[in-house]
Amino acid sequence: MNSFGGKTKLDSKPSGKPETYSAERHLHRSIRLRRKGFVLERMDPAEEYEMNHKRRGLALIFNQELFEGQAPRRGTNVDRDKLKERLEDLNFEVRPNNNLTKEEVICELKTASETSHEDADCFLCVFLSHGEKDHIYAKDDKIPIQDIMAFFKGDKCKSLVGKPKIFIIQACRGDQVDNPVTPMCGDDSDDDTLGENAEDTEVDTGIFSTLPAGADFLVCYSVAEGYFSFRDLENGSWYIQDLCEILRHHGETLEFTELLTLVNRRVCRRSVGNMSRIIYRGKKQPPCFASMLTKKLYFRSKNK
Amino acid sequence: MNSFGGKTKLDSKPSGKPETYSAERHLHRSIRLRRKGFVLERMDPAEEYEMNHKRRGLALIFNQELFEGQAPRRGTNVDRDKLKERLEDLNFEVRPNNNLTKEEVICELKTASETSHEDADCFLCVFLSHGEKDHIYAKDDKIPIQDIMAFFKGDKCKSLVGKPKIFIIQACRGDQVDNPVTPMCGDDSDDDTLGENAEDTEVDTGIFSTLPAGADFLVCYSVAEGYFSFRDLENGSWYIQDLCEILRHHGETLEFTELLTLVNRRVCRRSVGNMSRIIYRGKKQPPCFASMLTKKLYFRSKNK
Repeated sequence: MNSFGGKTKLDSKPSGKPETYSAERHLHRSIRLRRKGFVLERMDPAEEYEMNHKRRGLALIFNQELFEGQAPRRGTNVDRDKLKERLEDLNFEVRPNNNLTKEEVICELKTASETSHEDADCFLCVFLSHGEKDHIYAKDDKIPIQDIMAFFKGDKCKSLVGKPKIFIIQACRGDQVDNPVTPMCGDDSDDDTLGENAEDTEVDTGIFSTLPAGADFLVCYSVAEGYFSFRDLENGSWYIQDLCEILRHHGETLEFTELLTLVNRRVCRRSVGNMSRIIYRGKKQPPCFASMLTKKLYFRSKNK
Repeated sequence: MNSFGGKTKLDSKPSGKPETYSAERHLHRSIRLRRKGFVLERMDPAEEYEMNHKRRGLALIFNQELFEGQAPRRGTNVDRDKLKERLEDLNFEVRPNNNLTKEEVICELKTASETSHEDADCFLCVFLSHGEKDHIYAKDDKIPIQDIMAFFKGDKCKSLVGKPKIFIIQACRGDQVDNPVTPMCGDDSDDDTLGENAEDTEVDTGIFSTLPAGADFLVCYSVAEGYFSFRDLENGSWYIQDLCEILRHHGETLEFTELLTLVNRRVCRRSVGNMSRIIYRGKKQPPCFASMLTKKLYFRSKNK
C-alpha cells in the first residue's frame, strides 16, 4: 500500500512510488470557485473550431494498391479519386500518394508535420491500405498508427495545436476465415437493409483499436476490430463510398461527427447478399469514429 | 498473389484463400439504383434513437475502491454518488455495485444481459476502477473490456438491438514514471486553463484503446492511452466531476456526443498546478469517446 499521509497520495498501481506534494490551499479554493461559476458559464456547447483561416489545410492520401509479394488491393484507386474530389470540394489541398514504401510514407508525414499550418484550419490524412494489429501497411512494411499520429501532436507540430487533426483509415486485415468473429450490426429488422451482390466484393477483417493521439484528434475507422470490411472491386470500399456520398450531400452543412454518425448508419444498412461463401451472407460492417475533439467541426464553404 | 479470375476476388492478405462467388447482376444493379436514390433521400441526419419507451433503462455502476493487496482508490465513492444522482435525473434505474470480485462482476453483467430490455430506451454501464492493457480490475482480478461489451451485442442480448449501449470507463493504470509519455492537450494558449492544486490528487495513466463492440455502442474513456488521468481524493476524478457537472447543466437538452465533446473541452482545460513532482506540472488529460452510434442520442426528460 502506497500511503504517505493524509490526503496526499499518488496512485501507483501497479508500479508507482510514494510521493508528496506541496499545497497552496487558498489558490486551490479560488480556482474551484472560478471553475464552478465563471468558466462553466462560458462553456458554449455551440462553440466551433475556427475554420476561417486562409487555407482549409492539407489532406494527405496514402493510397496503397500494390504490396510486395501480394495481390493488388483492387478498387482502392476509385476510393482515392472519389475522396480527392470530395475533399477538394471542401477546399482541402489534396496530395495523393500511391504505393509508397514505409520510408517514403514516413518522409511524407515528417515533411507535412514540419510544414507550417499557421494559415490552415486543420489537417487531414487518409490511409487506404491493408493493416495488422494497429499497424498500417506501406508497400514493403508496416507502420504503427500511433507513430503516424505522433507526428502531428503539439510537441512535434505547434502550428496545429488547437486545430482539428483528422485521420481516416480504410484498412483491414485480410480474410480471417479461421478466426471466427460474430459480426452484428444495426437494427436487424430495418427494412432499408441493402443486399450487396458479392461478385465484385473483397472481404477484410477490422483489426484496429488505436484511439486518437491527443486533444483535437479524430480518427475515423472503416470498421471496428473483429468485424468484416468490404471492398467492391469496381466501386471502391463500402465505407469510402458512403463517406464520399454523404460528404457530397452534407459535407458543407453538417457538423463532421454528425456526418460520421450518418456514415455509421449508412454502412450498417448494407449487408452481403449473394456470396457463395455462406459465412459472409448477411454480414455487415459497423464503422467507428474516436473523438478527442473539443468543439464542433464544420467545413463550411470558403467561397461564400 | 491470390488471383482467381476476373473481378471475383476475395481479399486474403495476410492469410486468406482464393474463393469464387455466384453472380446475380440484375439484382445487383437494382440494389445499386435503390441505394443511390431512395435510401439516401431517406437518411435524415436529424434522426434520433427512440427514447420514448416506458423505462430509460438500467445503469450499472461498478465502483471499485478496494483491491486485494493494494491501496484503496480514494475519491471513487464521490464519483459513484455524483454519477448516481445525475443518471437518476436522466431517469435511469441506477444499480451501484461496490468492490465486486471478477466472478461477481461477470455474474452481474450476465444477469443484466439476460434481463429483458424490451421496454427500455437504452443500457448504460460505468466502471470506476484501475485498469491494465484493455482490461479493467475487479477486486481480485482483471476482465477484458471486450468481454464486458460482448454481453450486450445483438447475439447475446436481442432486446438491446438497435438501442444505444453506453459504456463509461474511468479507469487507468497507476503512475508510470518509468514509462515517459508526452501529454499535450488543447489550445495551450487558452487562458481558461485551470490550475489544479495536487495536494489531493492521484495520478493514473490511460491504457485503454478498446473500440466499441458493434453498432449502437458508445464507449466514453476518461483519458486516452499514454496520457495521465487525475483523481482528486475529496472530489473524485476530473473526468467524472466534469461529466457530472455538464450532465447537470445539459443532460436533458444536449445531444449526448455533443455533451461528451463539451466534457473533452472541459477536462482539457484543467492542468496540474502545484505538484512537487515536476513531471506532472502543467500536465493535462484529454478524454476520448469512440462511437458506433447510428443516430442522435437525447436523454430528454420522461416526465414532460
